[in-house]
Amino acid sequence: MTSSIGIHGRPSAAEPGGTGPVGYSLPLSPTGESAMLTPPPWHFSGEVIMVDYRVDPDAARRFLPPGLEPGADPGAAAAVFATWQWCSQDGAELTEPGRCQFGEFLILLSCEFEGRPMARCPYAWVDQAVPMMRGWVQGMPKQFGTIHQSRPVTVGRAGSRLAPGGRFDGALTVHGRRVVEASVTVERSTDQRPVLHDVPLAHTLAFPEWVTSGDRPRPKLVASEVSDVEFSTIWTGSGDLAFIDGLEGDFRTLAPLETGAGHVFSYGETLQGGRLLSD
Amino acid sequence: MTSSIGIHGRPSAAEPGGTGPVGYSLPLSPTGESAMLTPPPWHFSGEVIMVDYRVDPDAARRFLPPGLEPGADPGAAAAVFATWQWCSQDGAELTEPGRCQFGEFLILLSCEFEGRPMARCPYAWVDQAVPMMRGWVQGMPKQFGTIHQSRPVTVGRAGSRLAPGGRFDGALTVHGRRVVEASVTVERSTDQRPVLHDVPLAHTLAFPEWVTSGDRPRPKLVASEVSDVEFSTIWTGSGDLAFIDGLEGDFRTLAPLETGAGHVFSYGETLQGGRLLSD
Amino acid sequence: MTSSIGIHGRPSAAEPGGTGPVGYSLPLSPTGESAMLTPPPWHFSGEVIMVDYRVDPDAARRFLPPGLEPGADPGAAAAVFATWQWCSQDGAELTEPGRCQFGEFLILLSCEFEGRPMARCPYAWVDQAVPMMRGWVQGMPKQFGTIHQSRPVTVGRAGSRLAPGGRFDGALTVHGRRVVEASVTVERSTDQRPVLHDVPLAHTLAFPEWVTSGDRPRPKLVASEVSDVEFSTIWTGSGDLAFIDGLEGDFRTLAPLETGAGHVFSYGETLQGGRLLSD
Amino acid sequence: MTSSIGIHGRPSAAEPGGTGPVGYSLPLSPTGESAMLTPPPWHFSGEVIMVDYRVDPDAARRFLPPGLEPGADPGAAAAVFATWQWCSQDGAELTEPGRCQFGEFLILLSCEFEGRPMARCPYAWVDQAVPMMRGWVQGMPKQFGTIHQSRPVTVGRAGSRLAPGGRFDGALTVHGRRVVEASVTVERSTDQRPVLHDVPLAHTLAFPEWVTSGDRPRPKLVASEVSDVEFSTIWTGSGDLAFIDGLEGDFRTLAPLETGAGHVFSYGETLQGGRLLSD
Repeated sequence: MTSSIGIHGRPSAAEPGGTGPVGYSLPLSPTGESAMLTPPPWHFSGEVIMVDYRVDPDAARRFLPPGLEPGADPGAAAAVFATWQWCSQDGAELTEPGRCQFGEFLILLSCEFEGRPMARCPYAWVDQAVPMMRGWVQGMPKQFGTIHQSRPVTVGRAGSRLAPGGRFDGALTVHGRRVVEASVTVERSTDQRPVLHDVPLAHTLAFPEWVTSGDRPRPKLVASEVSDVEFSTIWTGSGDLAFIDGLEGDFRTLAPLETGAGHVFSYGETLQGGRLLSD
Repeated sequence: MTSSIGIHGRPSAAEPGGTGPVGYSLPLSPTGESAMLTPPPWHFSGEVIMVDYRVDPDAARRFLPPGLEPGADPGAAAAVFATWQWCSQDGAELTEPGRCQFGEFLILLSCEFEGRPMARCPYAWVDQAVPMMRGWVQGMPKQFGTIHQSRPVTVGRAGSRLAPGGRFDGALTVHGRRVVEASVTVERSTDQRPVLHDVPLAHTLAFPEWVTSGDRPRPKLVASEVSDVEFSTIWTGSGDLAFIDGLEGDFRTLAPLETGAGHVFSYGETLQGGRLLSD
Repeated sequence: MTSSIGIHGRPSAAEPGGTGPVGYSLPLSPTGESAMLTPPPWHFSGEVIMVDYRVDPDAARRFLPPGLEPGADPGAAAAVFATWQWCSQDGAELTEPGRCQFGEFLILLSCEFEGRPMARCPYAWVDQAVPMMRGWVQGMPKQFGTIHQSRPVTVGRAGSRLAPGGRFDGALTVHGRRVVEASVTVERSTDQRPVLHDVPLAHTLAFPEWVTSGDRPRPKLVASEVSDVEFSTIWTGSGDLAFIDGLEGDFRTLAPLETGAGHVFSYGETLQGGRLLSD
Repeated sequence: MTSSIGIHGRPSAAEPGGTGPVGYSLPLSPTGESAMLTPPPWHFSGEVIMVDYRVDPDAARRFLPPGLEPGADPGAAAAVFATWQWCSQDGAELTEPGRCQFGEFLILLSCEFEGRPMARCPYAWVDQAVPMMRGWVQGMPKQFGTIHQSRPVTVGRAGSRLAPGGRFDGALTVHGRRVVEASVTVERSTDQRPVLHDVPLAHTLAFPEWVTSGDRPRPKLVASEVSDVEFSTIWTGSGDLAFIDGLEGDFRTLAPLETGAGHVFSYGETLQGGRLLSD
């Protein structure tokens, strides 16, 4: 079996028309159409509830791999809830809302690579399998959880409007236990983007090796490359964040010492691929 | 055990401070706080994708109980997907997005009661238990299903905007089978409300009797009483609707003969209670 | 609309062949086949993990309606996890494992009716909608939760065998929070049935009233009538039980003061219907 | 960041005590405890419902990568439903039934490697995230689905016993559509193991590359190495299998031309790791 260049110029697992099943990812099949994942670019449109917070700078540092430094604001962190739609380049998934939607919760830590501000995501959870697996392709440590967040409303009394005093909540459950709760009460609109949502993410490509071999890939530090970033008006106010239950040890070292501003906004981007930071 | 007047002027199952557990609904408990349901009023704010369609008028008539007539437009029907937030009078549920959100799909049939236009809901599905049970309190035949619908986006490329050409989809799965798919492509905005979403619903109160007794309640024809109705701007265009699989017989007699306009809008209302139409 | 005698000698909502849609329950439809619930008898076969425990006798008493007394062993309680299959009289549901299976957790309190030992179920949760609704038909206060319990194994190393030292766990999550955890370590097999699983259940028929009317049914004390009870060999040992999080107030008054024996067994019964204890 | 030898002699992503977060898999964390996956060995105990069937031999061949041949019985295939418990070497997961249980459906194709009978798994679905990701570590193409299968009963009337005439069903739903249904009616017990459940699985290690680099791993043909295999008594009879809906193209080329025997049994194994067949 030889490698080859597949659809969209990205390497596929085997050659179409060749001597075996092919595909961008497992499952490999005669035409490649069965692959669970499509190749990038992937488009995303999401609704975000975000809380800035402070974490013990030493704890944060222990989550940074070689090459990443704490940077100018050590201990700056954020908790982010997002309700996404996604699609591949041709948009085919959009006609199936059960496939193109997912919820996500993630933690971001402020850091730098060669003096450039970036964010490190030590933990993330999603509620669909395809985005989870796609996370691992990028080095983003997505696990499976149950995620809920408030939806701003424009009519009726069952929810807050995006207006001063509006309150928006998020909650994460993992393995049947409530892990995180967050809340934002918005005060004013702004076009100032939340810092940690406006810097590149630095991930570590790492996947368990199944058989020992000479060409085993070492963990690699990579940055996600995105384009077509769009922010809606950003509603900003005060944020609240609590780590509740269910996860211990390393995760809890990133519990909030202090919470800061909260933000509610819509966000769009296209994830084009990854770029090697250091090998 | 005696009946009594409970919270919000509605009958509770037993008297607080009396000689047994109490509550608006099961589970009864010493203070009544364990009741699964809160008493009305209930507020709702939702995002709706709706397709007008035509059904065999004879089939529709067979779903109308005595007292309801086919009315001026026999065979007019609609398929409605909605993503809701709800809360009780005090809004307490809104801080828990996992509790206050649900998805719904329902069929509406045009009908009249004593010459007044109404809608009959022969089938409905929701994806949360509290709205399902609350449906039966009202005589609305809600069952359990998996419901997904497109979310309009304002940024990014993973979804349609509420603008000419925008496409929005809905899908219902019941017991592991895809039952219904719908799609709306919007063309223009209007303030003309979709007819079947703007008339009262006429339900039948009916609950299986467990022990034979003299005071068994007969099925009753009731109308839901709502207030504070709000519509957003309505985006209207063409609709598509298909009954796919999984439900047979009576349900399929309501399959679309023809599809008409499609609508996408936000909707708010407060459900105040029920009114007896005929006994 | 008039009441009538329906299928299996039970009242249906309206008369087949009559002037409106019919059925044992909502949804009513032309033939009655769309009813979400089938009429009893209902057959059940389950795998049970049960922990006997002691509750504050005063707390237990506050959950007993008029007519039920604490009896000879006030404060005796049990926590029961069960994995069920169920079917209607004709067994039709058994070919669809996604429909005929559900998980359940419930609390039982020791009590007496006119000197006869019974059990009162103040709280129950299931993970499927049909058993939840069927619970309310019987007056059993079933809510919706996520329930998991260990499966005994006969081969391999991923689980305990039903043999001395075997450990079996149960867990309940409600609205994203872990509410209860239980564990049983079995020591010996016996044919002595756990007391609270071998007495009739006394429920209260109560359903919220939607419109005020003269013939409103008062809450009624009823007993479930079961036949064809079968127990497997019962494995008995020590039990553990903890109330964790997520439910407050009335529920927590039933927290364990002390835990007793634990039991693991298979159980079958047929639920024939209900019998009025007092009106 | 340098590679190193981690827990259980397997490579970890980085060195504990070193200069960055570590772990057998993502998420990397200071102690490595946050890793979503534990290293092998993994123990499994399962309940299996299996249908032998015939597939177009040419279609099967198109799913075989270079190195695998159709072998002595081209077109032999099987559809397998299994309800699993799993645990790591120390058994820690067993006290959390919500974590250690999952359902699986997979297709097996008969094949050979260098004359030795093996099975190729072109498609598999599970209902939990950890087993899905662990599948990709092994090269097993597990996706996410909803899986249900009958549970044999020993008491009561809601299910079949493992006895002549007992019927056991399985069903797979993917993205809201029923994909596969299977049924086995058992006739007799035997100790003859179903052929395709008693040969090694040959998988292809393939994971999408995110950044182009010199040491990119090529797809590799590997065999899973298992130990401690245990079968219960095997109940055998006739099998039924249907591909229903929802998956097209390549998957449907493996639809049954003919169904053969069906089998119901318990199965245990320990998955020790992988062995390279060809590079």
